[in-house]
Amino acid sequence: MKLTLYSDYCLRVLLFLGMKDGELATIKEIAERYDISRNHLMKVVYELNRMGYIETLRGKNGGMRLLRQPADINVGELIRRTENDFALVECLGADNECRITAACRLRHVFREALDAFLEVLDRFTLADLLEPEAKLRPLIGLPLPRPSA
Amino acid sequence: MKLTLYSDYCLRVLLFLGMKDGELATIKEIAERYDISRNHLMKVVYELNRMGYIETLRGKNGGMRLLRQPADINVGELIRRTENDFALVECLGADNECRITAACRLRHVFREALDAFLEVLDRFTLADLLEPEAKLRPLIGLPLPRPSA
Repeated sequence: MKLTLYSDYCLRVLLFLGMKDGELATIKEIAERYDISRNHLMKVVYELNRMGYIETLRGKNGGMRLLRQPADINVGELIRRTENDFALVECLGADNECRITAACRLRHVFREALDAFLEVLDRFTLADLLEPEAKLRPLIGLPLPRPSA
Repeated sequence: MKLTLYSDYCLRVLLFLGMKDGELATIKEIAERYDISRNHLMKVVYELNRMGYIETLRGKNGGMRLLRQPADINVGELIRRTENDFALVECLGADNECRITAACRLRHVFREALDAFLEVLDRFTLADLLEPEAKLRPLIGLPLPRPSA
């Protein structure tokens, strides 16, 4: 059981932008810091922008930054939007051909399990994930956060 | 987010054998009833036998049947055994290379969500899934259960 690489990278980009604290970041920078494919990130950034999580500024000094506060970015909501296919088993999918579906309880059991899974994610925001920021930043090559005045 | 086809087919085979009520079934029969690949079923049957869910009898009149009562076949236990890879995101997997893993809370959040998912499955057995048996059997071409004496 896996999430798509796309969901995984969406989370990484948002975490990185959260650590940048409003400063602009580029795809090149994110790809280098995480050592992941720039090509994959293109789609991820395009979709995060489309979904209203980030804004992208064009031009030589362009880049992207969060459009919402980390506390307003819910993990469950994000995963519901990035995983467009939650068909854990065939009978939960659009192309279901299993013959016993009409009477089988399996899809209700899996639906209930999936709801429990997502309800846990609903309890967390990007801000929760960023809480150990002083430990996270050095791992990705960012300076420590400025002490608040 | 999907389970493997292997887990899906394990469940289908166990459901079918549960409906057969101790009578022997063959791979050919199961493949035809569900209209699914015989080749895929070979591995599934081999593994169900190895895990002690079913027994297979060789020979001309051979076949397979459940080795446990449906009430003793727990769905959560089965899925834990058939899904050998629960690496929802890279950081939960063996080949994790994400640089922020040491401080990132994401894997704990996903681990908790996965536990909630499996805990729901733990509440169900094959017997629960077979409860609407009078409705299930005609869908797969099996005669109605004999009325109990």
